[in-house]
Amino acid sequence: MSPLNPPRRLLFTAGPTQVHPRVYEAMGKPIVGHLDPYFFEVSEDIRRDLRPVFGTANPFVQVISGTGSAGMETSLANFVEPGQKLAVFTAGYFAERFVEMGRRHGANVACSSKPWGETFSEAEASDFLNRERPHAVAFVHAETSTGALQDLGAITRPAHAVGAITIVDCVTSLGAMPINVDANGVDVAFSCIQKGLSCPPGLSPITVSPAAVERLRARKAPCPIWYMDLKLLLDYYEGAHRYHHTAPISTFYALHEGLALVLEEGVEARFARHRAVHEDFLQRIEAAGLEMFISDDARRITTINTIRVPEGVNEVQVRKRLLDRYDIDIAVGFGQLAGKIFRIGLMGPLATPANVDLLSGALLDCLR
Amino acid sequence: MSPLNPPRRLLFTAGPTQVHPRVYEAMGKPIVGHLDPYFFEVSEDIRRDLRPVFGTANPFVQVISGTGSAGMETSLANFVEPGQKLAVFTAGYFAERFVEMGRRHGANVACSSKPWGETFSEAEASDFLNRERPHAVAFVHAETSTGALQDLGAITRPAHAVGAITIVDCVTSLGAMPINVDANGVDVAFSCIQKGLSCPPGLSPITVSPAAVERLRARKAPCPIWYMDLKLLLDYYEGAHRYHHTAPISTFYALHEGLALVLEEGVEARFARHRAVHEDFLQRIEAAGLEMFISDDARRITTINTIRVPEGVNEVQVRKRLLDRYDIDIAVGFGQLAGKIFRIGLMGPLATPANVDLLSGALLDCLR
Repeated sequence: MSPLNPPRRLLFTAGPTQVHPRVYEAMGKPIVGHLDPYFFEVSEDIRRDLRPVFGTANPFVQVISGTGSAGMETSLANFVEPGQKLAVFTAGYFAERFVEMGRRHGANVACSSKPWGETFSEAEASDFLNRERPHAVAFVHAETSTGALQDLGAITRPAHAVGAITIVDCVTSLGAMPINVDANGVDVAFSCIQKGLSCPPGLSPITVSPAAVERLRARKAPCPIWYMDLKLLLDYYEGAHRYHHTAPISTFYALHEGLALVLEEGVEARFARHRAVHEDFLQRIEAAGLEMFISDDARRITTINTIRVPEGVNEVQVRKRLLDRYDIDIAVGFGQLAGKIFRIGLMGPLATPANVDLLSGALLDCLR
Repeated sequence: MSPLNPPRRLLFTAGPTQVHPRVYEAMGKPIVGHLDPYFFEVSEDIRRDLRPVFGTANPFVQVISGTGSAGMETSLANFVEPGQKLAVFTAGYFAERFVEMGRRHGANVACSSKPWGETFSEAEASDFLNRERPHAVAFVHAETSTGALQDLGAITRPAHAVGAITIVDCVTSLGAMPINVDANGVDVAFSCIQKGLSCPPGLSPITVSPAAVERLRARKAPCPIWYMDLKLLLDYYEGAHRYHHTAPISTFYALHEGLALVLEEGVEARFARHRAVHEDFLQRIEAAGLEMFISDDARRITTINTIRVPEGVNEVQVRKRLLDRYDIDIAVGFGQLAGKIFRIGLMGPLATPANVDLLSGALLDCLR
């Protein structure tokens, strides 16, 4: 047996990102049973504390016992029945995952695709949705693979105009960028806990609008995935506390502490800190003659910075140098952007001016 | 915000059970990325160390990023296609879950049912399977809800005789009781980590026989659940390390340590310890005039003891007293056994003679 001795790294990645020390401490606390009243207190706190982070007054806020991808699958399995039309706006890796999952679930998937890194205007969304008239519309808020930020209302308004419900991947925005679920007309929003919430991966927060809950209740066929059936989860976490599965207690403790950290700082202050740090880093990047992959700052995620790999630079070598010289981990480009961009996260405990200095200096050194 | 301050309890439950202190320590170690070479070292160690615990030489050993129920769902979604016949042997709550999940997946489910607590003989299994000739056969090894242990070969032999693959829920046996996957002809075995492995919940180990892997590879339609697609998980954990989802790193650390503890003790020694402690507890129970729910010791799980609630005793009150007076948590009866049995786990760090004394004394005090 090899003893567990992980290298200590600065996770300037797209996620999992640096875990806050208080979160590690929370995970060391003794577990209770999954039907223990204390566990339900913890889960109630989490539900309450997630609301201001999502920007919602939805009574329905839960946590799926899986990672962000499990949240995506839960959303589709509960809100799109086989044969129903699902419209997906794709311009990146994670939007394409909606398409793949939707097809596997037997949805009739209609895609509006643009080159990776682009976003959709309200006119574009409206044209497409008026033509397709889908049952549900899915898209990504902050596309981790490209660094592009989609304006939520630009898609939710035309979606609601055709009577569709909106399913939004908020994996890279929750906890570090405003989502404003209610004001932006998002019916189903899901996320992860290892990015903006500074926890290790393992849970997927999800919130559902009252209108979408009505659709869920009206649904006749049971959710094809028992593990992800939101009606059963509702019975477990609320009301009767009817046993469903054995929730990952220690990861709930982690999320409880992660949310406490967010609320202690204040949601708005936290968003502002991430924006300020992003702008600080941006200045350093541009001053060094590097180019961002997303040209317009209004369309950029503040938590993950995507930078074009300069002509003639070996991206693999730069990442290796960062790791060897500075213990700094940054993220790799996916799919068609492999080797073409660096993806650099500035989140949670690493989103500070001192870390911008550390990271910028290291990056420029390793690019030389 | 309420600070996280969980009560300290002795988890003599059916799971989650007491977490070993070294496991909590492991979870406090710094995470690395989900594509970090160190993470794959950890996952390779886990795969290697799970083999002697499952009792298998299967190359295919993986871990699903969900709890034991996710392992059950993964098994059905990958090995039973819609319309195929799934035979399920049911005599308890978790066997019935196979039926429910199988139906949701569109399988043609055939049930052989006996009263809760009973098990199946080879003749009974053979009769049923010869009549039904299913594609797959599912059953529970150690039925957590009743305390009954099913002889594996009694079902796997007749299953293989009709060309079916065998899917076995080993949630309550892995790590504390012998399974002998290979010798017993189990094609797909899944489990959890919060019982015999003394970790907090959050992962589901699974192993698949070479014959079942062939069936998986021959499968034409993709697995309907993307998150649980074993082919994609294989590409992620082995070979190309192609990104799938973001594995729950800290829970992998927990499992790594949990398995190290099992192998340090020795698999056979650990099984023997659990058996000895079970027998010790049994003597105490019987000397006190209490009656086990499962009459024959050969058909009893050693890790969870199910005891009939004596005539006139209020089961809820006994559990409350145990908690109030001794901080001892025991498990509640499920479904048709609610209020009729106590379910008492003696696993991992709590499976010691001193804890048998503590628990027996407390139970008798609270029954008075």
